[in-house]
Amino acid sequence: MTPAGAGGGDRGPTLAVVGATGAVGTVLLSILSERKDIWGEIRLIASPRSAGRKLTVRGEEVEVVALGEAAFDGVDVALFDVPDEVSAQWAPVAAARGAVVVDNSGAFRMDPDVPLVVPEVNPHAVRNRPRSIIANPNCTTLSMIVAMGALHAEFGLGELIVSSYQAVSGSGKEGVDTLREQLGKLAGTELGTQPGDIRRAVGDLGPYPAPIALNVVPFAGSLKEDGWTSEELKVRDESRKILGLPELRVTATCVRVPVVTTHSLTVHARFENEVTVAQAHEILRAAPGVVLCDDPAAGDFPTPADVVGTDPTWVGRVRRSMDDPCALELFVCGDNLRKGAALNTAQIAELVAAESAA
Amino acid sequence: MTPAGAGGGDRGPTLAVVGATGAVGTVLLSILSERKDIWGEIRLIASPRSAGRKLTVRGEEVEVVALGEAAFDGVDVALFDVPDEVSAQWAPVAAARGAVVVDNSGAFRMDPDVPLVVPEVNPHAVRNRPRSIIANPNCTTLSMIVAMGALHAEFGLGELIVSSYQAVSGSGKEGVDTLREQLGKLAGTELGTQPGDIRRAVGDLGPYPAPIALNVVPFAGSLKEDGWTSEELKVRDESRKILGLPELRVTATCVRVPVVTTHSLTVHARFENEVTVAQAHEILRAAPGVVLCDDPAAGDFPTPADVVGTDPTWVGRVRRSMDDPCALELFVCGDNLRKGAALNTAQIAELVAAESAA
Ligand SMILES: NC(=O)c1ccc[n+]([C@@H]2O[C@H](COP(=O)([O-])OP(=O)(O)OC[C@H]3O[C@@H](n4cnc5c(N)ncnc54)[C@H](OP(=O)(O)O)[C@@H]3O)[C@@H](O)[C@H]2O)c1
Ligand SMILES: NC(=O)c1ccc[n+]([C@@H]2O[C@H](COP(=O)([O-])OP(=O)(O)OC[C@H]3O[C@@H](n4cnc5c(N)ncnc54)[C@H](OP(=O)(O)O)[C@@H]3O)[C@@H](O)[C@H]2O)c1
Repeated sequence: MTPAGAGGGDRGPTLAVVGATGAVGTVLLSILSERKDIWGEIRLIASPRSAGRKLTVRGEEVEVVALGEAAFDGVDVALFDVPDEVSAQWAPVAAARGAVVVDNSGAFRMDPDVPLVVPEVNPHAVRNRPRSIIANPNCTTLSMIVAMGALHAEFGLGELIVSSYQAVSGSGKEGVDTLREQLGKLAGTELGTQPGDIRRAVGDLGPYPAPIALNVVPFAGSLKEDGWTSEELKVRDESRKILGLPELRVTATCVRVPVVTTHSLTVHARFENEVTVAQAHEILRAAPGVVLCDDPAAGDFPTPADVVGTDPTWVGRVRRSMDDPCALELFVCGDNLRKGAALNTAQIAELVAAESAA
Repeated sequence: MTPAGAGGGDRGPTLAVVGATGAVGTVLLSILSERKDIWGEIRLIASPRSAGRKLTVRGEEVEVVALGEAAFDGVDVALFDVPDEVSAQWAPVAAARGAVVVDNSGAFRMDPDVPLVVPEVNPHAVRNRPRSIIANPNCTTLSMIVAMGALHAEFGLGELIVSSYQAVSGSGKEGVDTLREQLGKLAGTELGTQPGDIRRAVGDLGPYPAPIALNVVPFAGSLKEDGWTSEELKVRDESRKILGLPELRVTATCVRVPVVTTHSLTVHARFENEVTVAQAHEILRAAPGVVLCDDPAAGDFPTPADVVGTDPTWVGRVRRSMDDPCALELFVCGDNLRKGAALNTAQIAELVAAESAA
């Protein structure tokens, strides 16, 4: 890794944030401001539309520069938080100019030459990166995989059947704006009792195929083979790759709900060995990056409203299946913009920086 | 069955609606106004608080009378839509005075001498009612069981793993009022990004253990053994009883969502035999009380906002498990106040009336 670039002196490696103005980019800047400051220059990059805008990171104003080859001069690690097609085109450019790329889009996740990394689960995978690109999992998988990785290490995972309750910020700023606009139109009305009354009142559906206010929408991403959505297949493929279990049985049904930020999932997890709730509690309590919140008699279980803005994966409602001593039911919440996106990329970048510092 | 009571002349049997002023009772009155009019008098009963109020049914104003022994004089069929403890006390009184009771509470559902009936699934069970009481299933089970009964008849059901997305009207009028009040407080704010910000803003939680606006709550009903909720155990016990499969494997995780009316469920259903999506489509298309809505390429899948106010069980997102040729994934919606409560009781009452007319 080269010494830090222009603005960094000898303080540390140069970090670029590509997509600094987006939903994930915004959260990333606040995470970079909170975490141990190991970086020299932090360069902010977005589309030409945003060039010249000033954003705050580590308490300093930094001017956004337009994406282009020169933007990567002297960059050691580049975090990409941009649409798939922008990553597909520009991540190899950044890598060719000497940066290690951590990409948060879907463009490289299933590339066999690109590791898919969750620092609590498979940190060593970062070292094997022939393309100088490391991929960050999608937010739905990330919202449960730290907890499932910890349980897998102990009991051996055989099957996951999950249903998601996905927040609108998973669709970027457009999703949040759409929910807030629709709620504004529905507040104070008596709608939600006649077929189609909500659909007529909200008008614009934004990025969703149905109203999202006062509704749930069983469709996220795009349609793929045999009726599965891209989001459902990502949960399957990415869980297998992260856990290193290419034959793992994984079934997901992904549903969007009117929550701003924090994805939730119900998980039916079948293990190779018998499990008890007490054992699962012990493992989850000790697992880095996991908070066990499971005392329903005292009202303790995670909900998005309580979890949003926090870093860990929260786990509650742990029960052993009444039909199968090898299976657990769980309810899991994780902030899709933090651990589900920005935080995990920051953690990967820190792993890369530590590796070259060592 | 005796001839109709006071107000009915010889038009037909006398029906009593106990709990006519409640969330379910209100929907029941509109359903009775829409369906074939087979009843003589329809008598409306509620607590003494409501006595003297006038409600409209079949286009006529009817005065509400207070619950008491005399209220059941001459009643042939009594529909109970009141809290558990009121049913537990008063259903036997109505039965002793000669009425056939159709009870919508949880008081009698698992009583071996009380049939638990869904007319599309087990209509013949109505005849075996030693206590003159017939129970109506809970709304979460009812929102999926018509579809699952049809698939079971063809493929033989072995296991159900379900996650619910339950509407607030499942908690009665108090649930709806709470959601609307909380949404009023959150509309126009930027809340939902910091831990606890929604909890602080909404204040009163109403019947829920956490905010329900801009949130999902993985807890419905009361806490029972081993971390399961009453709602989750009902789905298990009632599905087994209705389908006549006392050994059926059933696992549920019940989650409340900010939807006014219509429960949704994701269902993982394992059958004894191999299934294909095409076969499942054919069966669901032909099943009475079911609407297949499954063409995601054209944007066709059910959502609560589109299903609310309708009678059938809507089924979409049918996929065959990639790991198990005997398993299907489905997304199911049903109006919890109509088929989930009032409609099913009206259908049972019609079965009882038809039986004595025959
Ligand atoms: N939201 C989540 O929960 C989540 C979770 C995991 C992964 N992701 C992934 O992270 C990426 C960003 O998502 P987001 O939700 O933050 O999206 P977003 O809010 O729409 O932001 C998109 C960002 O990309 C930039 N951009 C767009 N087109 C560009 C171009 N041609 N050249 C340079 N920059 C361009 C935008 O800059 P301008 O402001 O200048 O247009 C903006 O900074 C996506 O791949 C998404 O799938 C999102
Ligand atoms: N909501 C659903 O989706 C749903 C679905 C399936 C089953 N259920 C069950 O159906 C029943 C009614 O639910 P709901 O949601 O309609 O409740 P609700 O809106 O609270 O209505 C309760 C009804 O019961 C009456 N009532 C209460 N205490 C009484 C008493 N001591 N004597 C006589 N009447 C009394 C009330 O009369 P006043 O107005 O005079 O107080 C009102 O008509 C419950 O057992 C519930 O579990 C509900």
